[in-house]
Amino acid sequence: MELNGVEIEDTYAEAFPIKVARVLITAATKHWAKVAAQEATGFGTSVIMCPAEAGIEKFVSGDETPDGRPGVYIQICTFGYKSLEQQVLERVGQCILTAPTTAVFNGLPDAEKQFDTGFKLKFFADGTETETEIAGRKMHRIPMMEGDFLVENSIGAVDGVAGGNFFMLADSQMSGLTAAEVAVEAIQQLEGSITPFPGGIVSSGSKPGANKYTFLKATANEKFCPSIKDQIEGTEIPADVNAVYEIVINGISVDAVGKATAAGIKAAVTIPGVKSITAGNYGGTLGPHKFNLHDLL
Amino acid sequence: MELNGVEIEDTYAEAFPIKVARVLITAATKHWAKVAAQEATGFGTSVIMCPAEAGIEKFVSGDETPDGRPGVYIQICTFGYKSLEQQVLERVGQCILTAPTTAVFNGLPDAEKQFDTGFKLKFFADGTETETEIAGRKMHRIPMMEGDFLVENSIGAVDGVAGGNFFMLADSQMSGLTAAEVAVEAIQQLEGSITPFPGGIVSSGSKPGANKYTFLKATANEKFCPSIKDQIEGTEIPADVNAVYEIVINGISVDAVGKATAAGIKAAVTIPGVKSITAGNYGGTLGPHKFNLHDLL
Amino acid sequence: MELNGVEIEDTYAEAFPIKVARVLITAATKHWAKVAAQEATGFGTSVIMCPAEAGIEKFVSGDETPDGRPGVYIQICTFGYKSLEQQVLERVGQCILTAPTTAVFNGLPDAEKQFDTGFKLKFFADGTETETEIAGRKMHRIPMMEGDFLVENSIGAVDGVAGGNFFMLADSQMSGLTAAEVAVEAIQQLEGSITPFPGGIVSSGSKPGANKYTFLKATANEKFCPSIKDQIEGTEIPADVNAVYEIVINGISVDAVGKATAAGIKAAVTIPGVKSITAGNYGGTLGPHKFNLHDLL
Amino acid sequence: MELNGVEIEDTYAEAFPIKVARVLITAATKHWAKVAAQEATGFGTSVIMCPAEAGIEKFVSGDETPDGRPGVYIQICTFGYKSLEQQVLERVGQCILTAPTTAVFNGLPDAEKQFDTGFKLKFFADGTETETEIAGRKMHRIPMMEGDFLVENSIGAVDGVAGGNFFMLADSQMSGLTAAEVAVEAIQQLEGSITPFPGGIVSSGSKPGANKYTFLKATANEKFCPSIKDQIEGTEIPADVNAVYEIVINGISVDAVGKATAAGIKAAVTIPGVKSITAGNYGGTLGPHKFNLHDLL
Repeated sequence: MELNGVEIEDTYAEAFPIKVARVLITAATKHWAKVAAQEATGFGTSVIMCPAEAGIEKFVSGDETPDGRPGVYIQICTFGYKSLEQQVLERVGQCILTAPTTAVFNGLPDAEKQFDTGFKLKFFADGTETETEIAGRKMHRIPMMEGDFLVENSIGAVDGVAGGNFFMLADSQMSGLTAAEVAVEAIQQLEGSITPFPGGIVSSGSKPGANKYTFLKATANEKFCPSIKDQIEGTEIPADVNAVYEIVINGISVDAVGKATAAGIKAAVTIPGVKSITAGNYGGTLGPHKFNLHDLL
Repeated sequence: MELNGVEIEDTYAEAFPIKVARVLITAATKHWAKVAAQEATGFGTSVIMCPAEAGIEKFVSGDETPDGRPGVYIQICTFGYKSLEQQVLERVGQCILTAPTTAVFNGLPDAEKQFDTGFKLKFFADGTETETEIAGRKMHRIPMMEGDFLVENSIGAVDGVAGGNFFMLADSQMSGLTAAEVAVEAIQQLEGSITPFPGGIVSSGSKPGANKYTFLKATANEKFCPSIKDQIEGTEIPADVNAVYEIVINGISVDAVGKATAAGIKAAVTIPGVKSITAGNYGGTLGPHKFNLHDLL
Repeated sequence: MELNGVEIEDTYAEAFPIKVARVLITAATKHWAKVAAQEATGFGTSVIMCPAEAGIEKFVSGDETPDGRPGVYIQICTFGYKSLEQQVLERVGQCILTAPTTAVFNGLPDAEKQFDTGFKLKFFADGTETETEIAGRKMHRIPMMEGDFLVENSIGAVDGVAGGNFFMLADSQMSGLTAAEVAVEAIQQLEGSITPFPGGIVSSGSKPGANKYTFLKATANEKFCPSIKDQIEGTEIPADVNAVYEIVINGISVDAVGKATAAGIKAAVTIPGVKSITAGNYGGTLGPHKFNLHDLL
Repeated sequence: MELNGVEIEDTYAEAFPIKVARVLITAATKHWAKVAAQEATGFGTSVIMCPAEAGIEKFVSGDETPDGRPGVYIQICTFGYKSLEQQVLERVGQCILTAPTTAVFNGLPDAEKQFDTGFKLKFFADGTETETEIAGRKMHRIPMMEGDFLVENSIGAVDGVAGGNFFMLADSQMSGLTAAEVAVEAIQQLEGSITPFPGGIVSSGSKPGANKYTFLKATANEKFCPSIKDQIEGTEIPADVNAVYEIVINGISVDAVGKATAAGIKAAVTIPGVKSITAGNYGGTLGPHKFNLHDLL
């Protein structure tokens, strides 16, 4: 199958279940919403060594938020609800409450699972807190140095999906990187998915486990490493490919991750120098979700 | 004392010792250096609930880096060298190694304390790693999907300073916030200091401990909360002040934090609507370092 | 009338007819589309001394453009179709054709008035040009150093509207400026309108003609100048106002300018420190279009 | 000659004299200085069809400006002092005076040639203007809606240089474009030079005159057009090259243009995929200045 002259391999991405909390940050301007979101989702690429996976989902304008200000949805993901509740409390409390002009709303008000993050944060006010309502939502008002911080009582979470992915094989590093950049931009137009790695992009796609250093949980996927393609038996890197980038996608549902995968691939193939698109799977050992590229496109 | 018509109070900031590691990230462009730095220093505002305090120190151009590419210095801070080594390994390994086009150099090559972060990361290559040298520095070359990741063998750390600070009292939230923004921009021109909060700015300056909710380590500094100034006895907020922002400064030395404090204040007073500058201290209970504002200016 | 606690004066903005051409620029990434759009719309604030009024209308993603790449609509405005055709040719030829990775599409394919801009630009290829089609549009392919530049044969233009406006009166310069910034961000979500001044904002709202220096076509509107409010008889600046910003809006229709005015005001009143909103009119001497603020909201 | 493994051809760039005015814009923040500079230097790539060539030279921090605020130097260039004076008046008056929070200082106070731009602009105040001094400079204070606009009495201009240049030949469009991007970033660290094209980059390098359409002053340089390399006799495009970008450099002196050329080339060769660097010359027909690449490096 070809898209815009680029080969799409007949393969699938393998993904696994994760718990996902979703937070809507609003601020005086889009800039300050972004600043808070970047701090709150940092150190959040992979649960291998980060305390959570986290990323920016989508920016929204004032007519889509409860307080009429520009906003941004973020997602925070861990394997269990208990650790997730703690991560949400820490990241909202340390990275959004402390950020200029922000307010925090529940990004999944209809989810069954609700954390009382806002209720817990109100104690920061040391007795000066009050309750209020914005667009029907129960809010805590916390007086602070800059004025008042408003936070919704609860933050919802659901059973989501982690590890959706696709790979872009390109003639040069900059062709591949630009394809990855436009893929991330396209995915950020959609609801429900994040790309948790730096700038949304993985430069170091890994395999589970190791051949040699077996004390590691994940190591470089040497069959996709262009600089050593001449040394690796069974390399997946054709002669005309000199760089591979991966986009990893998490989301609140199988549907959201699938749509993000399709949108990302459609954007990536517009960049000259992209040779083919494939996806990562490990024989079903990693997880139960399968995203077949041809079916998605 | 007045500066540009703004009252500088005769007081001091109280700060405390912390361990600081310093990393130089380079990348193909300034943009990608920034993307990696933001991911690596995220979730890093305060050790109260973050695993580290971290921030961007300064961007440098290619003629100031070992590999001739644009770069950015970041700092990572915790209370002990053991936890710091772990944080450096996790943040470099998960947030910089995985970021597009980056390389990592030792930001404190002359420090006595050195972590072998690069040596440990090379195992990701699963046997395909090699050693090389750039500008006299011992580097590990790790083949990856995008090409090769280069990381210096060691990352240095020193006894530094945390909690340097000053407050801007302003007529309106946006005057105060813009003053904080230009203060952070001025500090990012200097060597050796970071402003770890979101965008470098604290909207929620706190006091140690609590009056009412004594189970908390830090709560809102109610005497500096404008929205409740009429209710709080002994409020520090004058009638014409409606917002206060704080800049918190960490650094590799007392000198670096002092210079950053002075540069930040000089920038802040250029913004119309800033009424006065003060600093946070807690009777010497918080730490041994004192930064007297009048002496610094 | 009040909106979010801000007084909206019962007045109207006075606007006048202008000719408007609309161009869709696409590029490899949103960044490069923006770079081309900024160059092409620069030196384009007011026809008083600029060769055209020009501005960015709206960014669009790849699923809204003929070539599947991210794009941006811009508008270019002058008083007559002849001068407009020349400005479109010069700005597209010098500022978009020369910009990295861009293509140019007709932003008003259904307009009666069409300029053959693409046809004229193809001569730059000096005989190497060819014709092609994208999504049913007739395109010229011009080989260049970076590859091929694709430009649609025609660019459409219509009778539009210039000088739609509103004023934000604020307690401080930074409150007013931030209100202006969010107003521009809100307007850039909409179709059909531009805000041609720098960053979309006017810091120097003027009156037609002059009191003293009558050789000038426009001079400062002294009744809206806060720094001299104590000296000007009949000043419109209340005691608690220290800054006024104006948003000037052009568009392809009365409807587009009206919707932009409403969206801008709704965003502006979210910023603390905004005291009132008004609009500029000159007794009907400037133009036939009247935008009544209360009617629009 | 090779630099970082990239062939530097033994050739020279041919450049010509131009008149250059230099303006220092300061603003409340770096962001607003940039907004004004982009508007003022837009529609300013080439005097072939733009009213001037113009660009951003360098951003400076508050400790390098007369009013202690962040700033940016811009240059405006035309062939004669008379047209230049008019362009400076129009661009400062329409694009900087109207921009939020800006002030304007003379960027060449020691030049023999001085335009009384500030003196002329003060009439906008319609009689409310006053004179003041900042850091020894004679300033006009013009009351406006946002507050006061401060502009220095005179703006200096000198005999400068236009058309300095170099070409980057690359394996793919994105490799070449990224090389161009980092070259521009490196040049913006230096004093005295600008890169007037969009984002500093030319995608459409031209030759003087035409082979076929002789009514044009400049047409595509077909020997450097990769997409038609198989059709053009004497093509300069090797088999492994698929894109060429040019950086055009203007400046206030031969020395400034030479240093910018060297810095740009050194940055460009750090990007993988760049194959060779060359320069544009036309047998001495274009101008008297010759910049030999090997001599500069």
